[in-house]
Amino acid sequence: MKIIVVGATGVLGQAVAASLRADHEIIEVGLSNGAVNVDITELESIHNMYEKIGPFDSLISTTGVVHFGPLEEMTQEQWQLGLNNKLMGQINLVTEGLKYIRDNGSFTLTSGIISKDPIRFGSAAALVNRALEGFVTCAALEMPRGVRINAVSPTILEESAETFGPYFMGFDPIPASTAALGFVKSVEGLRNGEIFEIRGAI
Amino acid sequence: MKIIVVGATGVLGQAVAASLRADHEIIEVGLSNGAVNVDITELESIHNMYEKIGPFDSLISTTGVVHFGPLEEMTQEQWQLGLNNKLMGQINLVTEGLKYIRDNGSFTLTSGIISKDPIRFGSAAALVNRALEGFVTCAALEMPRGVRINAVSPTILEESAETFGPYFMGFDPIPASTAALGFVKSVEGLRNGEIFEIRGAI
Repeated sequence: MKIIVVGATGVLGQAVAASLRADHEIIEVGLSNGAVNVDITELESIHNMYEKIGPFDSLISTTGVVHFGPLEEMTQEQWQLGLNNKLMGQINLVTEGLKYIRDNGSFTLTSGIISKDPIRFGSAAALVNRALEGFVTCAALEMPRGVRINAVSPTILEESAETFGPYFMGFDPIPASTAALGFVKSVEGLRNGEIFEIRGAI
Repeated sequence: MKIIVVGATGVLGQAVAASLRADHEIIEVGLSNGAVNVDITELESIHNMYEKIGPFDSLISTTGVVHFGPLEEMTQEQWQLGLNNKLMGQINLVTEGLKYIRDNGSFTLTSGIISKDPIRFGSAAALVNRALEGFVTCAALEMPRGVRINAVSPTILEESAETFGPYFMGFDPIPASTAALGFVKSVEGLRNGEIFEIRGAI
């Protein structure tokens, strides 16, 4: 299969690409690195990415930014960051990608554990991650030509623990290579409209 | 208690106000009708509403618009309608309201059954309703001074079946007065960070 990985230059994207490279053609996409570039907050940029790549079988997105901060201090711009980037960026990858994806292809998006396991400063992340999961369950019903859509919801990664650990006290990090299994299951399997949760012990 | 009902001129808001009027002071708020007006898509309008009303004990929101349509035909404006109105409108009611709400007060927002029970043309509704539920579970952790926050997720109302029924084939409508119970439970009870689902038989 020809598989696009948006976010391929990140920790999770690298692990996902490594898990699929032996069996598939991987197109690594990043904001400024990778074989092809895309800014997922710009519809025109997404369109250009698909025009460059042409028909494909699977789109995996392991990208998306959201603001963490105290609820009472969140600005409109901080809410919009997550809405424009991690939420609508990934949704626009799907709706625009529907014009290029081959029959029986798949989309796999990334949400995150905060949708189920709320933390201090996580209101925008909880909002965006749950929104993505709601979108996936409903959009799956309208996918044409045998195309499927799922989301992977990983817990915090061992590789990111130094950066994000203070927000996730008491969480059990997993290696990115373990989180990558969710994407392999989505791409190689037949399930549709599912959220694959990849968790540690707590 | 002094209870603000935003959306009080709608079918659900009327039923909620009727359920609480005997025991409480109700401030009915609508877009163009009601004792006070607010456009929840404008932060300035929300600010003005709270300035007019002053300190209060509970804010109930039964309002919010979202676009229903085929996934492949959704425009950016149609996605943004739900994000700006039902989602960020209700969130801004909370974050701005925190400056005016009395100790041990409560916020009660409205999501909807599509968050759990996806339908054709419902991608934006599923996204927005789940986003609201994610926000509520996480924001509840950061509520100050004993303030609580919950959401009510009603199924389709008998009173709205003529308008929305074609989208909700096979759903069992409930009277608005039954859906109102969720708001009474949220306001009069002690629970925090909960989603009260009000369902028919299916």
